[in-house]
Amino acid sequence: VDEFELIERYFARHGETRDVVVGIGDDGAVLKPDPDRELVTVIDTLVSRVHFPSSIDAYHLGYRAVAVNLSDIAAMGARPLWMTLALTLDDANPDWLEKFAAGLFAAANEHDVALVGGDTTSGENVVVSVQITGDIEPGRALLRSGAVPGDTIYVTGSVGDAAGGLACIESDRASEYLEQRFLEPTARVECGRKLIGVASAAIDISDGLYGDLHKLLAASGVGADVDLDAVPVSAELREQFGADEVRQFALGGGDDYELCFTSAEDIPKTLAGVAVTAIGTVNASGQLTLRDQTGVVPFEDSGYLHFE
Amino acid sequence: VDEFELIERYFARHGETRDVVVGIGDDGAVLKPDPDRELVTVIDTLVSRVHFPSSIDAYHLGYRAVAVNLSDIAAMGARPLWMTLALTLDDANPDWLEKFAAGLFAAANEHDVALVGGDTTSGENVVVSVQITGDIEPGRALLRSGAVPGDTIYVTGSVGDAAGGLACIESDRASEYLEQRFLEPTARVECGRKLIGVASAAIDISDGLYGDLHKLLAASGVGADVDLDAVPVSAELREQFGADEVRQFALGGGDDYELCFTSAEDIPKTLAGVAVTAIGTVNASGQLTLRDQTGVVPFEDSGYLHFE
Repeated sequence: VDEFELIERYFARHGETRDVVVGIGDDGAVLKPDPDRELVTVIDTLVSRVHFPSSIDAYHLGYRAVAVNLSDIAAMGARPLWMTLALTLDDANPDWLEKFAAGLFAAANEHDVALVGGDTTSGENVVVSVQITGDIEPGRALLRSGAVPGDTIYVTGSVGDAAGGLACIESDRASEYLEQRFLEPTARVECGRKLIGVASAAIDISDGLYGDLHKLLAASGVGADVDLDAVPVSAELREQFGADEVRQFALGGGDDYELCFTSAEDIPKTLAGVAVTAIGTVNASGQLTLRDQTGVVPFEDSGYLHFE
Repeated sequence: VDEFELIERYFARHGETRDVVVGIGDDGAVLKPDPDRELVTVIDTLVSRVHFPSSIDAYHLGYRAVAVNLSDIAAMGARPLWMTLALTLDDANPDWLEKFAAGLFAAANEHDVALVGGDTTSGENVVVSVQITGDIEPGRALLRSGAVPGDTIYVTGSVGDAAGGLACIESDRASEYLEQRFLEPTARVECGRKLIGVASAAIDISDGLYGDLHKLLAASGVGADVDLDAVPVSAELREQFGADEVRQFALGGGDDYELCFTSAEDIPKTLAGVAVTAIGTVNASGQLTLRDQTGVVPFEDSGYLHFE
């Protein structure tokens, strides 16, 4: 099967899609942007044995590759529209491709995102790069840089579940709930949309709450006090792991794809059906300080650094 | 060096860039499209030891990764604007990154293209995916599907040089001109712009003239007669290689990044400073027939198939 047939067979979905003038099959795609909106573009790559165990099935790899990008779109408050795919494969097994495409489109279809372009190549690693373009009302994108002292810090859903799920997958422990949270993360796209004009700053939690909140604070030039006892952790995570592991997963685990944001407003306890929890306050200290009932808690971020 | 510092050090170019509201450094980029134009998106990936010898230097890898995408933009007749980069590296050598970024920006700056987003990851292969978005007047994109019987087939520049250059790089033969044509291909962006409203169909030659013309004809539902004696080949290629090799490189070699297009009009001999040569005629046969003074020439396309 050559590249042309491969794309045609697994990835070209014909038919009417919104704002797509020319889709897959030419030198490029032609898209019709809304003249009254700005564009938001994000890109994220998954590499086998780096971002996921090589045992991960193709369906979940496809699903995750889209979801992690939708999470970045959510963190900007944007509406996802179009995606492109660069896929490097070690072989082109039809069964694998079928499942991969099913996962990819399952995640994309949840938000009506059209695959408009792609490139498949062979290589020694499986490398999946997805790039998504969305749009947003002009000047309204949620940036990392708008937090000011006095703002409350919020997080959606619960954190640490995905890291717990990965630990289950890589060991004998089994928790369908936690594993699912790693394999099929839910991008908080609707939450992000509702945060426009409400959040002063936002980021998605891909590298761990501590590390990503740290980036938001650094971009805003502020500090924060976080109440560790308030950080939302699922009952299932507490059931499967000891308190130290739970804290490590919740603060440094990554892969949760929840949103962390700041706001001067009181935020309802749920947003677009997702729990929202206040976990701390922005201050002018320039430091990120963690506290629990015992006082200040030192934390060494083991957040993911790609090139140490 | 962590990923964040790596991007900041080598890839974040601060300052005013056209239509970029938010560039590298947030969850996504925010871009301001021209409300009166459509968007054109292309993506292309280079994998070490598949698309280039592992001996290729980082500068040329960066340059080529952008140029091959600009060539797809050219084949659509679009104006390039913004690019994103997904870079998978086996290690993060500062010297390598410095040179890679220099090549990347050298190619991008020729057409004033801004790098607005990226993702760097580690892996066993070097994999470089570049995605470029451009824009175009609504309804004017050059597609592969518009050729009609009676149109003349044209090609820009000369073909086969890049394949000859690669053969030189991989052997003891030396030709600076040919090697340069492989290492720093010139995307025909200005030619593409001038072909709007003139060409009935267009494609860029990345997999070889025969294979790419075949795709254009198939997309248009037509056939063609090509005069092999008219196919433009450089004096340097003829000097370095025998007649059979020259023909093989010119028809099946790939990597030239010239444009092949069809038109009912008489095209000037140069377009935006680039030679344009008529090489054949579109017909209704549904077949691509090659002829020289001896008659019909059989040709077995060895064009690049990624997954055989």
